[in-house]
Amino acid sequence: MVRILGGYQTDFARNWTREGKHIVAPMKEAITSCLESVRMDASEVDTIHVGNFAAELYAMQGHLGAMAVEADVKFRGKPTARHEAACASGGIALLAASAELEAKRYKTALVVGVEQMKTVNAEQGGDYLGTASWYELEAKGKDFPFPRLFGQLGNEYVRRFDIPAEDYMDYQAYLAALMFRNARNNPRAQTREWAMDRQHARAEDKFNMRISPEIKLSDCSQVTDGAVALVLASEEYAAEYARKHGITLSEIPALLGWGHTTAPIQLTDKLAESRGHKYVLPHGRTAVTQAYARAGISGPEQLDAYEYHDCFTTTAYASIDLVGLTEPGENQRAIEQGWLEMDGKLPLNPSGGLIGCGHPVGATGVRQVLDGYKLTSGQAGDYQVHRKNNRVLTVNIGGSGTTTVAFVVGKR
Amino acid sequence: MVRILGGYQTDFARNWTREGKHIVAPMKEAITSCLESVRMDASEVDTIHVGNFAAELYAMQGHLGAMAVEADVKFRGKPTARHEAACASGGIALLAASAELEAKRYKTALVVGVEQMKTVNAEQGGDYLGTASWYELEAKGKDFPFPRLFGQLGNEYVRRFDIPAEDYMDYQAYLAALMFRNARNNPRAQTREWAMDRQHARAEDKFNMRISPEIKLSDCSQVTDGAVALVLASEEYAAEYARKHGITLSEIPALLGWGHTTAPIQLTDKLAESRGHKYVLPHGRTAVTQAYARAGISGPEQLDAYEYHDCFTTTAYASIDLVGLTEPGENQRAIEQGWLEMDGKLPLNPSGGLIGCGHPVGATGVRQVLDGYKLTSGQAGDYQVHRKNNRVLTVNIGGSGTTTVAFVVGKR
Repeated sequence: MVRILGGYQTDFARNWTREGKHIVAPMKEAITSCLESVRMDASEVDTIHVGNFAAELYAMQGHLGAMAVEADVKFRGKPTARHEAACASGGIALLAASAELEAKRYKTALVVGVEQMKTVNAEQGGDYLGTASWYELEAKGKDFPFPRLFGQLGNEYVRRFDIPAEDYMDYQAYLAALMFRNARNNPRAQTREWAMDRQHARAEDKFNMRISPEIKLSDCSQVTDGAVALVLASEEYAAEYARKHGITLSEIPALLGWGHTTAPIQLTDKLAESRGHKYVLPHGRTAVTQAYARAGISGPEQLDAYEYHDCFTTTAYASIDLVGLTEPGENQRAIEQGWLEMDGKLPLNPSGGLIGCGHPVGATGVRQVLDGYKLTSGQAGDYQVHRKNNRVLTVNIGGSGTTTVAFVVGKR
Repeated sequence: MVRILGGYQTDFARNWTREGKHIVAPMKEAITSCLESVRMDASEVDTIHVGNFAAELYAMQGHLGAMAVEADVKFRGKPTARHEAACASGGIALLAASAELEAKRYKTALVVGVEQMKTVNAEQGGDYLGTASWYELEAKGKDFPFPRLFGQLGNEYVRRFDIPAEDYMDYQAYLAALMFRNARNNPRAQTREWAMDRQHARAEDKFNMRISPEIKLSDCSQVTDGAVALVLASEEYAAEYARKHGITLSEIPALLGWGHTTAPIQLTDKLAESRGHKYVLPHGRTAVTQAYARAGISGPEQLDAYEYHDCFTTTAYASIDLVGLTEPGENQRAIEQGWLEMDGKLPLNPSGGLIGCGHPVGATGVRQVLDGYKLTSGQAGDYQVHRKNNRVLTVNIGGSGTTTVAFVVGKR
């Protein structure tokens, strides 16, 4: 079993470009502070894996695995790699790092997720994000392709399950407000000082503009600069680490299970494929059930919370059936009955998620697992959930529901 | 042990942009033909790993792991990932795929390396390649940063080992001509119909222009479009595969050993760090000795050939000490005594290498291992070496000697 020794998230409210800093700066802060936090020396890191979506476009820099070596002179000589699957790049980096530990190639792995997105304006950034879809067919020449694509996902739910359009917009506003509310408790969340309640999220005005037919500004995850680093360790190393620090091995959270699937890259192909299928996003569902099975649990009733890839409120809405809280088509029950709230049946995104905490694309999957670590080890401060399952599900999605990486993080 | 079942390389002389084709086209050809070649159905592939350097820049497309799913409808739902370490992206993809097999997550892995580089002109392409170095410090605003950087590497050899400058230029011309000569025997090599002998490579004229102080056109690897796919399998799957196809398991080449290191990304830092060290590129040397050690061999005398990352003739020159053919500073002996030729002590790049065969950046590391497979299973046709060690070393390098991934491919 691969254990998580700890980690560090930069303040997602920062604008590193305005600070005049290169992408190496958030990486370095995350790495240095992560090692301090887990009380490890850089020399004890065996291998380094970086998750990043598109630094080539945003920051004209590739080879980010090697860039991580700049954080500490003791990293010179160590193996490094960068991994990408659009907004699931962080999840892919965690899979690659944990595979190396399971293969017994190394005993410890530093995993870094990073994105610096505020180097360009919103239109340019929207175009860059289009490369996560089939750019030529789905994004080229279109303003904000992803709000369009995920708006269509919402539309598909409305049509397939006969949801009154006004009701669906209410659900979207509810989910947005919930994410902004949770974020207020997270001192690293980008929107922690923003105000966006359900009424405002429901309204369309100059502070909450419509971006695509189904998506307003409040329905979107943020454009965020940030980096997250965490240390994974083999069972053997973690046991030794526990002894050294006077704790028991079972106090150290682990990656209890994982899932990983890919749907066809175009949204129209996804929706055509799933027509007649129980789930709108069957491959997303499979990644979740794979993670449950590998963790040896039967479903969401054995979790304390879930950190889901709410890139838009339409994805947050879809998450309800995908994680198995309700059957598809009954998602509204979870909203109407308050199941997703901090004191509900299964809190959604205690951190605030991508809408509230922020979404530095390549860092998000790593941030989710770090939050899973914090939540299951009682270190989440004001956004701590108080349950007894000691398990959190994380779901990281790339493209329009294309790549899904799920983890069950927790103690055993 | 991870076995190699076979693979396929597209014709590196093709210009896919001129053919009006999207980057998915070479991927699809490589994947489909690879599966035909190994007589596997797409449904038998468990996981897909893509090596690619910078499709975001060259082809405005990210998420290439997911793009591989487009090659066959049976891939829908399967796990995919893209891996990057500049020109060592192919090597990194192979490491990630083989780690998953060693961790027993999957039994078979399809590894695809791809780059489409002829979408832009030479100057623009040179700038994009600059993102493999520290762009802002080493490449921004400079014409052809990599010929400059690798020219400086040559210069360092000249200074550190007191090589007469004229002699060094002769060695460069010899190595270039050798690569072009080998490529003539490779029906998939980009330059198979080009003429470039030693005399021409030594001369500077309008057909062989100077690009940087130490580098002429003939010293450079090519700008290439191409894709390579191969199938890796667990020992268990390979044994079953061998039975099914009436061969013995020991006839199927394997990844016998691997090495993986990272040097500081800036060339000036590399050279400062190695001052006083025996090797100019000590971390590159370590990756090679790691691969030897894991393969259980003592050095180059137990190889049949080596496929080395000759991005420039200066790297080909450095390869001689890095693989251990001579001590550093004595590299010229291998050249003067013909050791690197097809009938010499240890042939360098029977395929023609990056200079002769071509260098579609993210595909190169996969192409090298596929050539290792062909050479050790007697399938290299006119560039077959006839030896008895049944082992080939491959060395894939990203940046200015930054990331090194080495494999010993062979039978056991």
